[in-house]
Amino acid sequence: MSNHLEVIILAAGQGTRMRSSLPKVLHPLAGKPLLGHVLDTARQLEPTGIHVVYGYGGKQVIDTFEEESVHWAEQAEQLGTGHAVAAALPGVAEEATALILYGDVPLIGPNTLQRLVEAVSGETLVLLTAILDDPHGYGRIIRDYKGQVQRIVEQKDATTEERSVCEVNTGMMAMPAARLKEWLGRVENNNAQGEYYLTDIIALARADGVAVEAVIDDDLEEISGVNDRVQLAALERSYQRRRAEELMRSGATLIDPARFDLRGTLRVGRDVSIDVNVVVEGEVSLGDGVTIGANCILRDAVIEEGTTVEPMTIIEQARIGPNCQVGPFARVRPGTEMAAKAKVGNFVEVKKSRIGAGSKVNHLSYIGDTIMGADVNVGAGTITCNYDGANKYQTNIGDGVFIGSDTQLVAPVEVADGATIGAGSTITKDTPAGELTLSRSKQITIKGWKRPVKKSG
Amino acid sequence: MSNHLEVIILAAGQGTRMRSSLPKVLHPLAGKPLLGHVLDTARQLEPTGIHVVYGYGGKQVIDTFEEESVHWAEQAEQLGTGHAVAAALPGVAEEATALILYGDVPLIGPNTLQRLVEAVSGETLVLLTAILDDPHGYGRIIRDYKGQVQRIVEQKDATTEERSVCEVNTGMMAMPAARLKEWLGRVENNNAQGEYYLTDIIALARADGVAVEAVIDDDLEEISGVNDRVQLAALERSYQRRRAEELMRSGATLIDPARFDLRGTLRVGRDVSIDVNVVVEGEVSLGDGVTIGANCILRDAVIEEGTTVEPMTIIEQARIGPNCQVGPFARVRPGTEMAAKAKVGNFVEVKKSRIGAGSKVNHLSYIGDTIMGADVNVGAGTITCNYDGANKYQTNIGDGVFIGSDTQLVAPVEVADGATIGAGSTITKDTPAGELTLSRSKQITIKGWKRPVKKSG
Amino acid sequence: MSNHLEVIILAAGQGTRMRSSLPKVLHPLAGKPLLGHVLDTARQLEPTGIHVVYGYGGKQVIDTFEEESVHWAEQAEQLGTGHAVAAALPGVAEEATALILYGDVPLIGPNTLQRLVEAVSGETLVLLTAILDDPHGYGRIIRDYKGQVQRIVEQKDATTEERSVCEVNTGMMAMPAARLKEWLGRVENNNAQGEYYLTDIIALARADGVAVEAVIDDDLEEISGVNDRVQLAALERSYQRRRAEELMRSGATLIDPARFDLRGTLRVGRDVSIDVNVVVEGEVSLGDGVTIGANCILRDAVIEEGTTVEPMTIIEQARIGPNCQVGPFARVRPGTEMAAKAKVGNFVEVKKSRIGAGSKVNHLSYIGDTIMGADVNVGAGTITCNYDGANKYQTNIGDGVFIGSDTQLVAPVEVADGATIGAGSTITKDTPAGELTLSRSKQITIKGWKRPVKKSG
Repeated sequence: MSNHLEVIILAAGQGTRMRSSLPKVLHPLAGKPLLGHVLDTARQLEPTGIHVVYGYGGKQVIDTFEEESVHWAEQAEQLGTGHAVAAALPGVAEEATALILYGDVPLIGPNTLQRLVEAVSGETLVLLTAILDDPHGYGRIIRDYKGQVQRIVEQKDATTEERSVCEVNTGMMAMPAARLKEWLGRVENNNAQGEYYLTDIIALARADGVAVEAVIDDDLEEISGVNDRVQLAALERSYQRRRAEELMRSGATLIDPARFDLRGTLRVGRDVSIDVNVVVEGEVSLGDGVTIGANCILRDAVIEEGTTVEPMTIIEQARIGPNCQVGPFARVRPGTEMAAKAKVGNFVEVKKSRIGAGSKVNHLSYIGDTIMGADVNVGAGTITCNYDGANKYQTNIGDGVFIGSDTQLVAPVEVADGATIGAGSTITKDTPAGELTLSRSKQITIKGWKRPVKKSG
Repeated sequence: MSNHLEVIILAAGQGTRMRSSLPKVLHPLAGKPLLGHVLDTARQLEPTGIHVVYGYGGKQVIDTFEEESVHWAEQAEQLGTGHAVAAALPGVAEEATALILYGDVPLIGPNTLQRLVEAVSGETLVLLTAILDDPHGYGRIIRDYKGQVQRIVEQKDATTEERSVCEVNTGMMAMPAARLKEWLGRVENNNAQGEYYLTDIIALARADGVAVEAVIDDDLEEISGVNDRVQLAALERSYQRRRAEELMRSGATLIDPARFDLRGTLRVGRDVSIDVNVVVEGEVSLGDGVTIGANCILRDAVIEEGTTVEPMTIIEQARIGPNCQVGPFARVRPGTEMAAKAKVGNFVEVKKSRIGAGSKVNHLSYIGDTIMGADVNVGAGTITCNYDGANKYQTNIGDGVFIGSDTQLVAPVEVADGATIGAGSTITKDTPAGELTLSRSKQITIKGWKRPVKKSG
Repeated sequence: MSNHLEVIILAAGQGTRMRSSLPKVLHPLAGKPLLGHVLDTARQLEPTGIHVVYGYGGKQVIDTFEEESVHWAEQAEQLGTGHAVAAALPGVAEEATALILYGDVPLIGPNTLQRLVEAVSGETLVLLTAILDDPHGYGRIIRDYKGQVQRIVEQKDATTEERSVCEVNTGMMAMPAARLKEWLGRVENNNAQGEYYLTDIIALARADGVAVEAVIDDDLEEISGVNDRVQLAALERSYQRRRAEELMRSGATLIDPARFDLRGTLRVGRDVSIDVNVVVEGEVSLGDGVTIGANCILRDAVIEEGTTVEPMTIIEQARIGPNCQVGPFARVRPGTEMAAKAKVGNFVEVKKSRIGAGSKVNHLSYIGDTIMGADVNVGAGTITCNYDGANKYQTNIGDGVFIGSDTQLVAPVEVADGATIGAGSTITKDTPAGELTLSRSKQITIKGWKRPVKKSG
């Protein structure tokens, strides 16, 4: 094996059966484009270069990965897999080992690829193959009496005996880049489709006396490609099952691993428990003993130890301190920080605010652009009026404040430490510390008033 | 085959194992009664008549389908399948082909039935059969050396050799109606149960020298009957899996096809994406690029292109325009229309209202019986007081209105274009265009007020 | 078989692969600790004594079950299963039959154990065994030519022939307690691990001429143990599948049995229907014709006949009367009672309150510590201010009251029968019967007021 590796990823296909305006390799699996999964895996092999062959929807593909360090090679016409690989070759160093991957085979793993690449000793061409119970439709691997790969025969060209072979070609392969270039230069397109087939290089290798070997991949999910959305959904479930199992083995309880979705990265402390139907997106971290209730959605959040997230809660771009309680039916929006033992309850929305230690916003409130101190009690129906139709303003609430129910805090406004606000007040001016402030009309009774009666329709 | 078809559907059974007060054929599968599925399929064959044999819970069955053009035939006593079919025969034309179906076998498909009916050439009696891995309990199809059906032998009467036959009777069959009448007239009930068995006509047909053939149905879900709720749940899942797969093949992404429920009809544009655990009921249409978040429920709704429905949102009998954003935690009730780019946010209920283009009701509000113009901003906690305990009234809000938080709009009331309402106002009279209107008490501070202290329990 | 039974449950292991601070036997399955399941099953056998051998996390284990009538026996060191059983023996009566169970094998059923215990006639030692398709890793049951158990051979010690045996040891066994004591006293620890193996008593029994028999358990879920959280999740699903099937057979419709979680006891009347993704905890009872919508969570609740619980509703420690409607998006908290035909709607929280017959709290309200009469209409945004920061107070609302939207009822306060409250009022004093009471500021318009403009950032 040469001392450096270059990876070629074929990502030019349209994927007609996806019936989509989006190029196939951009369809998300666990929230990340298919091609993104292959790129991430390729990078784990620490190659000197990654070459992506694009075609259909090229600009969109390139834009999606513009922050990636990738060599882009255009395949303007779709003239077969050999033609596609050839498009990338000008950028590939002669002395490298070339590894060919596919942008629509997302779950291929780095360990399998490592085995494949390591099998390229000196001159060898190494194929990644698999043994299928039902090989129908796949190119079969025909080995010679020494066990070396002789050729690949396609389903339609196979004899009955050849069709009984269960070892099939996955398309992934590795070989010295110099030989790849040479062989591809000799591949012809004198077939019915007028295409250049990558697999034709096997015959050329054999003709040159080069050994062709196969590394068998036992993990069929790794080699599964996506051609339509049914296959995409099946791979999504495979992926999620694996993530769920990893989490359980690392010490998290999942009440139903088949009802758990991870679209990103989840770090868990000790004895985390996640109830049914939870969705985790982005970068999420859960501290020791955190429990997440059913149907919650967590996105880019840090939740510290001992905190309970009750069912049907959405937390996004927020940091929840230790021993807090959030939900049920809470919406914690970006820019929220909750200090230790804070509570955000049902039908409460919090945005870009800090809730101090031990403070409680238990019911039916909107807290936005607010700095709240410790041990505050916010009554039900409290609303921070942070927007005047043109600009957003800040609300500051000190420590130990008690805000009566159905209060409006018209920002910018400051409620000083220990202040009490009477229920139903519209607070437009700063309120002094330790005193009761309110705005209230006198309660009156209108004697003799008659209730409206039902009008005849 | 004769040039017209009449369908007989047996729907008289009680279904004791359902342990239900509802007649078995009225139990819903995907929100529609079992019998409704069979009727819908029967109609796709364009028969000249559909005859339903009812018995247990007859009135309830007839009432459920009172709008269907169906001939009802009562089977007053339960004297066997032959007896049931006989009840329908007086209404069936002699020259028709008769097709016998079952009200508790809901997933039988029109293509299979078409094959069955087309196999009735001239005199033939054609059975629908199936090959089961485990045929235990079913009537076996015994064929003669020519491959024609000789008879059906029930499990309890079968020899060891006969029990090894895996082809079984589904009960569905087709034949010339005239011969069916004749044979049924000769079926006797001299058996242990004293019942008239429909399958006895096979021997009579053979005795008459009539060919008995079988059409084999490879699709076992199609021929599965419902006898208890465990089977009902299993068929519900079969049905949902099929609907999900159809949707994916037509170009929709389902994040988890096993967590998707369609109870009605869903039309999708290009590149629709539906997250986990969504339930769709009635007639729903989703435009190009619509995304539906986790746990949403959509019922009889039109959602136009580019709109995002955030998680945990319920939309019912509503029309959502293009590029809108709805939810999370929104409840959009019947009679709601949202124009382009409108927003309805968390903990917001909208009923029988129009939300104009670009208008926003972002938080904790109730909007009912309201016509709202374009570019309106409705503050958190706004409530349209549309009901005085006896009648409902309308609220009209013009274009470009800004409504401060926690406002009550006591209908009937009109807020003219460009008006601004101060936070916390109770608006009982029309408000002029372009001006600030509010109702507010002075904010005061009660010096020296003491907070209540915890009483000893 | 002797006339009394004593059960020994081994529960001393740490369960390293759980990667948990919680002792393995305390991990919950369906909301109940693994050991709790085994104890419940053991009790159904009506033994004279239950002995639990504890070790790792002993205090926590004992505390969890402190209300159980159990003999605790400490195994201070972990010296093997024989050593563990020996720890319990001093408390076991000589004349009893001893049954050995495991705290981490939670789904073993009473019928199987009854069969096992009944097979102990006189002197016999009886093992519970199982036939596995893939017995790899398990101790194999080697029977002699008479079919009696000769010995158990562990995987690593088994010959090729012995490895082909598919009957394996489950570890559960029963025998006369006197013989168990005698044999265990003779078990030695001269093996690589230096442990005392319980299975060594088989050879001793045989040497004493005692018959060793096996009862085969066909139900593999019953004998499955929990060693890590992957296995725990798998058993959780087995358990839930069984509960779901029982419910369906008893006459409840589950729209998707794979998306139903029961953590406790659910009693259902006739024709109850439960939609997808519902979680039931504690003791719940649902009357005839109750329907539960998708994603609901019910905990310790009684819901009477004809009531509809709409989707995404949480009900806890509450009693809901007949023909009520609750939800969607409702939170009914502990101490709530709803009388017949009452309604609690979206974004409503009710706590420790009584809602009278026919009364409606339809939108965006918080009702706490309230006694509400019949036929009350509570407007959207109504809040009972039950807490002054120190104490909780009661709100009393009479019959036929109409409360306008966005009202605050500052408790303690009484709204007499037939009273009407104007929208937006802060009610601090009792309101008279039959009259209109309100607190309201005059609506004014500020002419010439200018809207704020967007500040340049």
